[in-house]
Amino acid sequence: MRGVVMYGPGDVRVEEREDPRIIEPTDAIVRLTATCICGSDLWPYRGVEPVDHTLMGHEYLGVVEEVGSEVSTVKAGDFVVGSFVISDNTCEICRAGFQSKCVHAEFVHGGIGTQAELARIPHADGTLVATPGQPDEDLIPSLLAASDVLGTGWFAADAAQAGPGKTVAVVGDGAVGLMAILAAKQLGAERIIAMSRHPERQKLARYYGATDIVEERGEAGVAKVKELTGGLGAHSVVEAVGTRESFMQAVGATRGGGHLGYVGVNYDVQIPGIELFFAGIHTLGGPAPVRRYLPELIQLIWDRTIDPGKVFDLTLPLSEAAAGYAAMDERRATKVLLTL
Amino acid sequence: MRGVVMYGPGDVRVEEREDPRIIEPTDAIVRLTATCICGSDLWPYRGVEPVDHTLMGHEYLGVVEEVGSEVSTVKAGDFVVGSFVISDNTCEICRAGFQSKCVHAEFVHGGIGTQAELARIPHADGTLVATPGQPDEDLIPSLLAASDVLGTGWFAADAAQAGPGKTVAVVGDGAVGLMAILAAKQLGAERIIAMSRHPERQKLARYYGATDIVEERGEAGVAKVKELTGGLGAHSVVEAVGTRESFMQAVGATRGGGHLGYVGVNYDVQIPGIELFFAGIHTLGGPAPVRRYLPELIQLIWDRTIDPGKVFDLTLPLSEAAAGYAAMDERRATKVLLTL
Repeated sequence: MRGVVMYGPGDVRVEEREDPRIIEPTDAIVRLTATCICGSDLWPYRGVEPVDHTLMGHEYLGVVEEVGSEVSTVKAGDFVVGSFVISDNTCEICRAGFQSKCVHAEFVHGGIGTQAELARIPHADGTLVATPGQPDEDLIPSLLAASDVLGTGWFAADAAQAGPGKTVAVVGDGAVGLMAILAAKQLGAERIIAMSRHPERQKLARYYGATDIVEERGEAGVAKVKELTGGLGAHSVVEAVGTRESFMQAVGATRGGGHLGYVGVNYDVQIPGIELFFAGIHTLGGPAPVRRYLPELIQLIWDRTIDPGKVFDLTLPLSEAAAGYAAMDERRATKVLLTL
Repeated sequence: MRGVVMYGPGDVRVEEREDPRIIEPTDAIVRLTATCICGSDLWPYRGVEPVDHTLMGHEYLGVVEEVGSEVSTVKAGDFVVGSFVISDNTCEICRAGFQSKCVHAEFVHGGIGTQAELARIPHADGTLVATPGQPDEDLIPSLLAASDVLGTGWFAADAAQAGPGKTVAVVGDGAVGLMAILAAKQLGAERIIAMSRHPERQKLARYYGATDIVEERGEAGVAKVKELTGGLGAHSVVEAVGTRESFMQAVGATRGGGHLGYVGVNYDVQIPGIELFFAGIHTLGGPAPVRRYLPELIQLIWDRTIDPGKVFDLTLPLSEAAAGYAAMDERRATKVLLTL
């Protein structure tokens, strides 16, 4: 089968590699219908994160080809969406809703790599969720988004306790930030401030539910959010960029006692403890426990209540993955869908 | 009146200064019955925090001498306990329970200084809480503890979501750490792990409710907590030291999806964002909103349900404040009560 391998920074290739096979009785083999490139794939691409012949891709959906003898919730022929972190969904951590910290957690990125035609998914029962049936073609992008970018944005908004009566500020207008806006709206937020300076993305932010746009960044951005919130700051803030500047902008935009949800931090970010301390805020971050939200998100998409698929603004065949990486790196695309 | 002034690191003096007077109609003047030295007072004493002729002291109780015309909840003659942060207790932030981030928040340390005979307390209605009557002499240390160290430890345990069925780990065996243990027990925690290597403090930790003692620090300490919790880490962790090492020890001891409450960070601590991110935990920290807890804590002390006053292991007259600072600095005392 073919799959994407990143040899080193900026060096993306589509190569033949061996078809995956069932190894453990809890495995499933999925034939991918589509996959995509994640903003986080740009860190190794840009040399910010280590990379060396790494199997790329962690977002996926498709049709189950085969399951191991102990798999009981999905079967050959089922259409499934999976989380970007493997989880058994039965351990104490999973039962508490933190499947991305499962005792059997394993990142799909690197070890498995779903920018490929086929993927072996361990702990299939705890990682995959079957859709109610074979999806209509136009639902594919939205269902694919659920695999990470929607699930991550949703987690961020939930971690920030977005909800009725709340003012939510979202730092970052990439795909995850846009999905956090969609999530905040679904969760009932009263006001949603998108921090964005790109006209195209502002448009999408408003489409997904943003009520205000703040173009300023850093201290000026914080001042603007305070101005919009009676001097207090937002109840709920989502950080979806991952630099020290954006993180501290998010901290500053959160009111005392408010909630900050953060879903990505660069490898070298150092957070000044004293500033975080005196902010007096709740934080919750980490790789999103997408599996927790998947059943609900799939249903919302199936019912056409939400359409997260709009974050994909470029579609390419898998064979042109390198061009997709370049487009995202150069910000010519927000998110690239790869067809198979 | 007499009051403590820290001229510079290590230079503590008791000096005459003018008696405070009512300035705002929301002020009260309190004649202190006792005050004390806080672990945080050691940061300027050791030169870790800036200090220059600073008015010291932020923990206090005593008898109201006079109130401004708009004060309605306390009156002359009332015995009161106050928070170490001034708050109006009516603004949106206060109503959400974060009085230490009140729109009128002001630190008693520095501007007011309650290592003194008298203190002007702004926003008296929102800062002071009257006890049910004049307290018995033996309740003074415990009521004084409520002003900061108990309130702070309680907030930390609450922020860590200590409660029934939970395993709580407390990093730090100073007064705040010990109070967090007391709080965790009152909040119903199932198991309380005290991270301490001082025999005397271990004894007090057990007295207040610790069920396990871990002497190891850093990675070895984290490994020990994991060993005691089936490899998962504690549900709830309190950080009550404030160094980078102790903070990361606390992060490491928290299970994925668990809760970390932290109540002090040194000025120069940089938190590695990527480690915090991959921990996947909730955090809540900051100067404790003691005012939120004061009514409940005063009642628990009044009813002799809890006896936090045991954290004071040295009592000196105010005039010997310098000796008190030295004793705490040299760890000859956990916490020093100053009599007036």
